[in-house]
Amino acid sequence: MVAGTMDGAAIARGVREQVAGDVARLVAAGGTAPGLATVLVGEDPASEVYVRNKRRSCAAAGMVDLHRHLPGDVTQADAAALVDELAADPAVSGILLQLPLPDHLDPGELLARIPVGKDVDGLTVGNAGLLAQGLPGLRPCTPAGVLEILDHHEVPLAGAEAVVVGRSVLVGRPVAQLLLERNATVTICHSRTRHLAEVCRRADVLVVAAGIPGLIGPEAVRPGAVVVDVGIHRGPQGLHGDVRFDAVQDVARLLTPVPGGVGPMTIAMLLANTVTAAARQQGIAL
Amino acid sequence: MVAGTMDGAAIARGVREQVAGDVARLVAAGGTAPGLATVLVGEDPASEVYVRNKRRSCAAAGMVDLHRHLPGDVTQADAAALVDELAADPAVSGILLQLPLPDHLDPGELLARIPVGKDVDGLTVGNAGLLAQGLPGLRPCTPAGVLEILDHHEVPLAGAEAVVVGRSVLVGRPVAQLLLERNATVTICHSRTRHLAEVCRRADVLVVAAGIPGLIGPEAVRPGAVVVDVGIHRGPQGLHGDVRFDAVQDVARLLTPVPGGVGPMTIAMLLANTVTAAARQQGIAL
Repeated sequence: MVAGTMDGAAIARGVREQVAGDVARLVAAGGTAPGLATVLVGEDPASEVYVRNKRRSCAAAGMVDLHRHLPGDVTQADAAALVDELAADPAVSGILLQLPLPDHLDPGELLARIPVGKDVDGLTVGNAGLLAQGLPGLRPCTPAGVLEILDHHEVPLAGAEAVVVGRSVLVGRPVAQLLLERNATVTICHSRTRHLAEVCRRADVLVVAAGIPGLIGPEAVRPGAVVVDVGIHRGPQGLHGDVRFDAVQDVARLLTPVPGGVGPMTIAMLLANTVTAAARQQGIAL
Repeated sequence: MVAGTMDGAAIARGVREQVAGDVARLVAAGGTAPGLATVLVGEDPASEVYVRNKRRSCAAAGMVDLHRHLPGDVTQADAAALVDELAADPAVSGILLQLPLPDHLDPGELLARIPVGKDVDGLTVGNAGLLAQGLPGLRPCTPAGVLEILDHHEVPLAGAEAVVVGRSVLVGRPVAQLLLERNATVTICHSRTRHLAEVCRRADVLVVAAGIPGLIGPEAVRPGAVVVDVGIHRGPQGLHGDVRFDAVQDVARLLTPVPGGVGPMTIAMLLANTVTAAARQQGIAL
């Protein structure tokens, strides 16, 4: 058996089209186009690329680009004042504070100023609490993208054994919560897990977000399992993930490639969160 | 082998003594005695008993009993005003809103008014988010009590396989987070889990909080496992838990009884949270 490839780029295109349709429906229903405020501090080249991509995607979906750029030596108080201004501005549907920030700034204090309803990255403590308690809220983009890929391929989750490798606040922990919300039996593994391959081999659905290149090989995959690789690393042969794609392809039933798997989903889910946030703020059902 | 019994009543007494010592140290260091504001709405007899026990324990530990009783027909606005008053009052270290409330009140809206630093029950969305992100905060009392029992018996958690049965916001989900924080490999099971006994048999540490009398028998317990039973049910032969104590005693290494296991820990951990909250608010290290 050779595993089918789950094409995140194609699924992400579908999500973006859906979002563009939602934006048009929102405006047709008498609402205003969602506005995304990306906040970039300083001149970090990688952050500049990420923010540029988010702004382009936002405009392409018919949303309003409300980008704000602060100098790298901005004070905490001035950065906080900008977040407060965006929080209060009804034209701003979502606020995305691009991390990492310069060392002299406290990111937690700034994130805490973003209202949960505008936290389109889904990374604030408030939205983490809503997710932990199974309450409605904005979900983190990469974990939501993992679920979108699984749903697109109609992978059964209720009653399935799901194993998540990695317990980061950004991916591992929230993806475990989302799988639990969908009634999977969920195991979280991490660096202290003994017999990692054995635990992973229990999984009907294996989500790998460990940040360790090539950590997962065929010995850690149950024949017929569905494997989602969130890792992305640059090596001598180009980009690759936490999963040894070629070897695991002979064991799994479905598998995400790197690149072109989870990566493209993150911005797509950011756009989806932004139109969701705008519709809620405007009291319009999509 | 017959399992050892983990005596929650004795462990809870130790915690209360520790808390009484902390209160004395806080006052000796120039602070003021912690104040616990229990808020009871209406005349529910079970709630009255719970609140009375909390108030007595609070006073016995040298803390100030700041109980408030609202009539059963209080408006949401008046209840909210009381919570806001307690939130602003420096004599109030902790606020405990006794649930359930009368049907006409919205508990979520009232809980959200309790500042995370005074949320000694650890049940607000804010504290759930801090726990989910591994940040310092006040932890829910019953889950914290489970960990206290395990620590008292020096049960190794790092690298252990822990299985939690039940995914309630009150117990299952936070206890899973606490076990993860302590570096266990954690699996969460629930009503949709297939082959429950088989999954439970993987556990070095099994925490059962399903709310189903006698759900767990010896077939679900690995020989030598440590089993914590959070369930409590009243039956014809008195109180019993989610675990069939007599049968599991022949398989497990350590086991909590019902009653006298997790039950007594809840109030003890409430007291511990209250003195912790007071010390933080007063800027005094204990």
